[in-house]
Amino acid sequence: MPKKEFHVLLVEDNKHDVRFVRRAWQQNRITNILHVVPHGQACIDYLLNQGEYSDSVKHPKPGLVLLDIRMPVMDGIECLRRIRELPELKRLPVVMLTTSKEEEDLIRGYELGCNSFIQKPVDFDRLSEAVRVIHLYWTLSELPPL
Amino acid sequence: MPKKEFHVLLVEDNKHDVRFVRRAWQQNRITNILHVVPHGQACIDYLLNQGEYSDSVKHPKPGLVLLDIRMPVMDGIECLRRIRELPELKRLPVVMLTTSKEEEDLIRGYELGCNSFIQKPVDFDRLSEAVRVIHLYWTLSELPPL
Repeated sequence: MPKKEFHVLLVEDNKHDVRFVRRAWQQNRITNILHVVPHGQACIDYLLNQGEYSDSVKHPKPGLVLLDIRMPVMDGIECLRRIRELPELKRLPVVMLTTSKEEEDLIRGYELGCNSFIQKPVDFDRLSEAVRVIHLYWTLSELPPL
Repeated sequence: MPKKEFHVLLVEDNKHDVRFVRRAWQQNRITNILHVVPHGQACIDYLLNQGEYSDSVKHPKPGLVLLDIRMPVMDGIECLRRIRELPELKRLPVVMLTTSKEEEDLIRGYELGCNSFIQKPVDFDRLSEAVRVIHLYWTLSELPPL
């Protein structure tokens, strides 16, 4: 598959999960850069280059957002709602990557326009395989212009 | 990856492309059933079990729609708009699978809420790989309840 360059923004408060995703990134030799923010409000700030994310060179627009649900300050469902309300972010691909097994979250996620909903495996090998498939799929997809 | 059963609806008027996708399905040993309709209006009829698709046993609700753009009767962009307007279909995953390279189609597709936009390769081996990755990704994803 041809190499495609895009940045990925992981929105995740759990440091163990962040380490796991970074390890999976390395294990799959993914060269696209992974940025991490700890909650939904930081995600919005990052995407709009506000506050501590105002430097758009250090914090470039991602082609894909991986969004956890249960987080402090602003959860993933509220963050997704805000993303879809902002004209400049409306089209941005957002994948819910979460341990949530609640059907309500799944339904809300799709209703608010997430691009897909993936349960984050707790086992590292399965997480690494999920990261590989997610990256492969979004490399295959045409991303909307930033 | 665990086996997950869901039906896939391919909306495609070009018979050569339909044959290619069916061959790719076989080559990748995908056991989930592929249904085919020739244009957007037939897609809506299928999804609502209307007209010639009224038998819901023969024409079960798909977990995923692969939607071409340029088609007679009703094109893929109009079909996507109607899907997103119907409360019972609003959450259904729809992947635009098209030879269109027009940025306008890409932007309209994401704005109207397609789940991703994939350029259909003209070469069979690349198409087969694309079908493999699409199927793998949607097997990994949690699908919204039908």
